[in-house]
Amino acid sequence: MLARYFPLIGWLKAYNKHALSNDLIAALIVTIMLIPQSLAYAMLAGLPPEVGLYASILPLVAYTLFGTSRTLSVGPVAVISLMTAASISQLNLTDSSQYLAAAVLLALISGLILILMGIFKLGMLANFLSHPVISGFITASGLLIAASQLPHILGINAKGTNLFDLVLAIIGELAQTNLLTLGLGGFALAFLFWSRSGLKPLLIRLGLSAHSAGLLAKAGPVLAIFATTLTVWGADLANRNVAIVGAIPAGLPQFGLPSFDSWLFDDGLWQQLVVSALFISLVGFVESVSVAQTLAAKRRQRIEPNQELIGLGAANIGSALSGGFPVTGGFSRSVVNFDAGAQTPAAGAFTAMGIALAALFLTPLLYFLPQATLAATIIVAVLALIDLPAIKRTWQYSRSDFSAMLVTILLTLSQGVEIGIMAGVGLSLLLFLYRTSQPHSALVGLVPGTEHFRNIDRHQVETSAQLITLRIDESLYFANARHLEDRIYALIVQQPSVKHFVLMCPAVNLIDASALESLEAINHRLQDSGVIFHLSEVKGPVMDRLQKSNFLEELTGQVFLNQFAAWQALSEKM
Amino acid sequence: MLARYFPLIGWLKAYNKHALSNDLIAALIVTIMLIPQSLAYAMLAGLPPEVGLYASILPLVAYTLFGTSRTLSVGPVAVISLMTAASISQLNLTDSSQYLAAAVLLALISGLILILMGIFKLGMLANFLSHPVISGFITASGLLIAASQLPHILGINAKGTNLFDLVLAIIGELAQTNLLTLGLGGFALAFLFWSRSGLKPLLIRLGLSAHSAGLLAKAGPVLAIFATTLTVWGADLANRNVAIVGAIPAGLPQFGLPSFDSWLFDDGLWQQLVVSALFISLVGFVESVSVAQTLAAKRRQRIEPNQELIGLGAANIGSALSGGFPVTGGFSRSVVNFDAGAQTPAAGAFTAMGIALAALFLTPLLYFLPQATLAATIIVAVLALIDLPAIKRTWQYSRSDFSAMLVTILLTLSQGVEIGIMAGVGLSLLLFLYRTSQPHSALVGLVPGTEHFRNIDRHQVETSAQLITLRIDESLYFANARHLEDRIYALIVQQPSVKHFVLMCPAVNLIDASALESLEAINHRLQDSGVIFHLSEVKGPVMDRLQKSNFLEELTGQVFLNQFAAWQALSEKM
Repeated sequence: MLARYFPLIGWLKAYNKHALSNDLIAALIVTIMLIPQSLAYAMLAGLPPEVGLYASILPLVAYTLFGTSRTLSVGPVAVISLMTAASISQLNLTDSSQYLAAAVLLALISGLILILMGIFKLGMLANFLSHPVISGFITASGLLIAASQLPHILGINAKGTNLFDLVLAIIGELAQTNLLTLGLGGFALAFLFWSRSGLKPLLIRLGLSAHSAGLLAKAGPVLAIFATTLTVWGADLANRNVAIVGAIPAGLPQFGLPSFDSWLFDDGLWQQLVVSALFISLVGFVESVSVAQTLAAKRRQRIEPNQELIGLGAANIGSALSGGFPVTGGFSRSVVNFDAGAQTPAAGAFTAMGIALAALFLTPLLYFLPQATLAATIIVAVLALIDLPAIKRTWQYSRSDFSAMLVTILLTLSQGVEIGIMAGVGLSLLLFLYRTSQPHSALVGLVPGTEHFRNIDRHQVETSAQLITLRIDESLYFANARHLEDRIYALIVQQPSVKHFVLMCPAVNLIDASALESLEAINHRLQDSGVIFHLSEVKGPVMDRLQKSNFLEELTGQVFLNQFAAWQALSEKM
Repeated sequence: MLARYFPLIGWLKAYNKHALSNDLIAALIVTIMLIPQSLAYAMLAGLPPEVGLYASILPLVAYTLFGTSRTLSVGPVAVISLMTAASISQLNLTDSSQYLAAAVLLALISGLILILMGIFKLGMLANFLSHPVISGFITASGLLIAASQLPHILGINAKGTNLFDLVLAIIGELAQTNLLTLGLGGFALAFLFWSRSGLKPLLIRLGLSAHSAGLLAKAGPVLAIFATTLTVWGADLANRNVAIVGAIPAGLPQFGLPSFDSWLFDDGLWQQLVVSALFISLVGFVESVSVAQTLAAKRRQRIEPNQELIGLGAANIGSALSGGFPVTGGFSRSVVNFDAGAQTPAAGAFTAMGIALAALFLTPLLYFLPQATLAATIIVAVLALIDLPAIKRTWQYSRSDFSAMLVTILLTLSQGVEIGIMAGVGLSLLLFLYRTSQPHSALVGLVPGTEHFRNIDRHQVETSAQLITLRIDESLYFANARHLEDRIYALIVQQPSVKHFVLMCPAVNLIDASALESLEAINHRLQDSGVIFHLSEVKGPVMDRLQKSNFLEELTGQVFLNQFAAWQALSEKM
């Protein structure tokens, strides 16, 4: 029981030296990867760089305590940082301390929402986000993020709330480009792109094993940071308008509850924050769970989605209590953690220690780090999120899924992340209802010499002038109940000789109250037309439900266990 | 082709003396019923009484031209009048000419929406309104309308935007009750309630046939109006604070486009009107179509839902062009029209002539008509809408449908009609997704000596240690794709000896892009776990769709036409 809510009880019992050494190695590699990422994603979220480090300490410890994935790496991630920036920009805050306070509060509210969802087992809410919507949203976010970092590479100031405005602003400022910044940023970009594919073969040629080379190649961003920081320092570029990170306060974050100042409540800003936190929670949860499931399956381990909600919720509350911003499980870092051999969530706790040490001792070294390098880190990371083949695949597979994806992409780019997601979700639902609102149904007849019934349009079958049998291939519920009514009335008007109508229900898994009323209406209206209404092959649970209503008493005809019995009783031929 | 858009071409060819005399009699009876109703519903909508008459002339002619029901009686109805009042109150207009202009515009926009829906065959949008939501909404509206008319019966001034406020306001003003008004109103109420059941037997005892007595009993409101108007005139009650209808301008409405004044656009009010018009259109369409279908079935006639949209749209545009407010097909009047023997939509056009004559010549007679009598007419009409047994039936049949109904009722009463409907629709969708998000699935095994497979928990069946077969009883789409992943991973972890996993799909009618990605993920993750993934009994259209993706190429196992073939190939026993 306790082990259910504290999964660490399970793995801690079997913890040994071997697991410890594996976890320590993985933690070291992830720490090296996380230091530049945490600074960069804080910048993306519009926050001071140290906030990125703060969001990479306590959240990791909290997830170690409550999470069920053994290899998920929690912390700042690109899409959630973009959503954080977009949410807070909506509030039109002018004061940067208010901006930070809003980010911390967003983490707190997200954490509470995730934990409540976990307690009430509402992980199913994430099902609203269909794959095409999520995939379209991630692609559009990647484009938005990449565009938002371009000004840092160019050394210009350009902002816009959508892709169009942003690109226009960048073009307008292009003449102001700082060539030194562009040189550094361009070098970092080129090096990082190259290091994705070129660094590993180089290291192998230098004598490393393929596995170590693969892991060490992930340190590419650290090399880029090292080289560009040294250049800025050596050539005194900070005095030549190259934007640098500057002084980062050294030391651990202050722990404590975020402040609830009156400006939040005066303007009802917290309500907007709650809505934004809901989006951030859902997107973060969906992304994190799919990474965790992919990695768990590789080792035949399991993750528990509702406990994951609690783990991620605890991580966000941990972030809020240490002055951080919303976090979730990140894809690339988790894969590195897995590949580096992490055995248990303890690797996350060790990573937290590594980041804490960095916050205590490394920050002076980052003073001359150019912002362009961080921007390059972000761009290279998010361009991997843009999945054009997925768009093509979806187009080929289903036009309706494709349209939900396209709407999500276009509205995310033009109207922002929340409207993009909402429109995508709304359209998915509409399209699903539309698809099920006109379910497949077929008039059936008897295959001669058998007891089977098949579609009269496709097979040579026996029919009867006084009997119509319609097989319906979908559950009956509010979206298709009226369609069924229309279909049946049309059939009755077409065939005036008919005396019996049988609705064959082998594929009906549910009849909801709307469909029940439609069946009642069909029964009465057929009665008014002098036609007797029967059902056949009704499934057990559906029949149990029908017995709770008085439909079966009012039914003019019978319920036949199988269609052949209905045929024998009702067709004049027998 | 032309007959499709002008259904009157169909029935006009066969029109004869017999149909003419039937239609004229029905029109006479409906006119007598419609005069007080049109005045009362205009009052309910917050409009001058003559607007009710105006909304009962051109709309009826327009529906005669474009509608497909032979017996539907179009005009002002209670629920749509309430929705009109609620929509316009939101706009906080102070000027009564603006209020009227907004009502006219609402009819115009509703008409355009309905016609567009008809042209694009979007009648399916009405499917969003499930029966429990519609039924709960109508019941709550009935309560709201009845409460809103009480102050007229009591002769007091009391308003409130929700039931609670309204009841409190009435209680607060109770001391101001005008006893003369209460006497008239109470008499009208009592007489109308009695006339619903007592008038017909009385008329039969007076020698009328049962049929004529039934029809004449519908003139109860006219008798009440006659008696109370005479009383007010005779006893000079208008000078003793009994509210009367007063001067109604005589004559036909002015025809023409409504005015589009700048105040509408300054405050963006027209956007709010469009949203309200959408609700009014959908509710009006659903109500009207269900009445029309019920009546058509009794004579084995058909109505065409998408053409009905055009008919109702034309009626609303007709209303707007003659200074009226939103209209739709009414339940009680249509039944009377049907019972009175109306043969064709011409009866509607004759009714329009009757109302036009009333507008020309009868209005002076209505000067002393007490508002309390109209309020009594409304109360008696709407109490018939309150369907408490439906609430009980829904509770017994399905808790989930009941909760959607209850939320609709409570929010309609407390927050207003639009929020009530939206919450009901949203909850219906959520509950439907929830129900299908955890679809029924069963592990199956071979029934010995047969080729059939059944649930291993319910039947004595053969299984194999290296083969798991899961039968899934629902289409696979975004709401249940992740559930399927979780279920399969859990099964694999439980049974480490397994080498083959077969997903049996006889009830899968659809695999959407989300479910396809889940199947791909399942395939890859099972591969990572050393398990081969197979499908069996995939339906033809689903298979066609899968062939458009590269899933079948990546599938580690096979697609078996039937489960027995899978068993023969994969279980070690064979």
